[in-house]
Amino acid sequence: MAAPLTPPASSTRPSAAEHARTIAAANNAGTLATLTGDGDPWASFVAYGLLGAAPVLCVSHLAEHGRNLSADPRASLSIVAASTDADPLARSRITVTGRVFQPSAAERDAARAAYLNAVPAARIYLDFSDFTLWVLDVQRVRWVGGYGRMDSASGEQYVAASPDPVAPVAARAVAHLNTDHADALAAMSRVFGGYPDADTAVCTGVDRYGLDLRVHTPRGVAYTRVGFSVPLDSADQLRPATAALAREAHTG
Amino acid sequence: MAAPLTPPASSTRPSAAEHARTIAAANNAGTLATLTGDGDPWASFVAYGLLGAAPVLCVSHLAEHGRNLSADPRASLSIVAASTDADPLARSRITVTGRVFQPSAAERDAARAAYLNAVPAARIYLDFSDFTLWVLDVQRVRWVGGYGRMDSASGEQYVAASPDPVAPVAARAVAHLNTDHADALAAMSRVFGGYPDADTAVCTGVDRYGLDLRVHTPRGVAYTRVGFSVPLDSADQLRPATAALAREAHTG
Repeated sequence: MAAPLTPPASSTRPSAAEHARTIAAANNAGTLATLTGDGDPWASFVAYGLLGAAPVLCVSHLAEHGRNLSADPRASLSIVAASTDADPLARSRITVTGRVFQPSAAERDAARAAYLNAVPAARIYLDFSDFTLWVLDVQRVRWVGGYGRMDSASGEQYVAASPDPVAPVAARAVAHLNTDHADALAAMSRVFGGYPDADTAVCTGVDRYGLDLRVHTPRGVAYTRVGFSVPLDSADQLRPATAALAREAHTG
Repeated sequence: MAAPLTPPASSTRPSAAEHARTIAAANNAGTLATLTGDGDPWASFVAYGLLGAAPVLCVSHLAEHGRNLSADPRASLSIVAASTDADPLARSRITVTGRVFQPSAAERDAARAAYLNAVPAARIYLDFSDFTLWVLDVQRVRWVGGYGRMDSASGEQYVAASPDPVAPVAARAVAHLNTDHADALAAMSRVFGGYPDADTAVCTGVDRYGLDLRVHTPRGVAYTRVGFSVPLDSADQLRPATAALAREAHTG
């Protein structure tokens, strides 16, 4: 792995809490771990919505996980990001852990709407008497971003973070940059990424803070990062911010 | 839902244990529920191989689930079948639950090979000293085949069952039958499926025992099943068995 020859201009990355919020917001199903009456672990597939940061579950007490939650509120939810990688362990995933509670009368409509927003088909059964809405109060978070990228966060950090506004368009943006702007990516790597000897670069990820780049140099391959001048607040800002980086790299 | 007008000729379906073996065999990743030191549930994404029926895990003791298994062997693995359905709860899934053990010296090579067969990328890290192979002795199985289809099985039933040999080609076969053999499906529904008034039929699933059909009649929609004369032992037998059913339906 080639080392940078100059200090990268910015290497700010999303925090574990931000990654977790982003993965939670982009999905509507995961696997719940609950405890049986014997205290054994029980893994079961569930759909969820989000009331702010908190996963909202809607489970039947006819189902084992429903009975488990009624008897013991401890629960852990694993959510795996969509991926086209053949290696499952290259996928990003999170575990959010805490205790479930039934929403108060004041919160119930919002919890119900959050679940229905994520799982529209639930309108058929959500109000059946055997179904209960549960909100997961997240107390602990673990994020694994694939091989060798992982970190923990507290429940407070998770609640305080935001989902990345760029995430919904990131895959498309990465494909576009690699197809149409390979020269700009290489220039960014040379000027801002710490690899003045980069001959080519491939974008491997985009988030509100910048671009992940895989750089090829005569000294070997390396991974670097190029940051936007300010964090982006919406997906609309991605194109102008990337274009600005490319301009500055070409003139820099 | 229209009721059948004649008794369906055969309604044999795969058992919960067979469904579970089929779903386990078709995938290489799931979510594991383990117990933390406090006895809290912990859900985490894992890859797995299969040593016969038994899931084989390879986890680092640097990871929380690795430490959990070392301290308490109770574990539950949820595996979700691939699906293109937008509704997550329409997906088939299983929970297999029991206790993990480290394979004996005699079993270790087979367990290692089983994991590598399912997760080839693991050759890079599998022999690192922080990784441990675990085999899950399945004691209890729950299968959910989507809405309203679910059943349990014992560990013994799970071990004794086989993955459906037709499963790897099922999706392609269903598409082919619906595209090119709609008339045959309607004829099967009329002659064998209990719906002599079926005007059209759509195949919704194929397994070693037969075809699932959604039937349209002047009395409304219905779901039925048409069985093969003998259960299939290989994917190769699917085309001739289906062709035989179609012939018999047209002449029947």
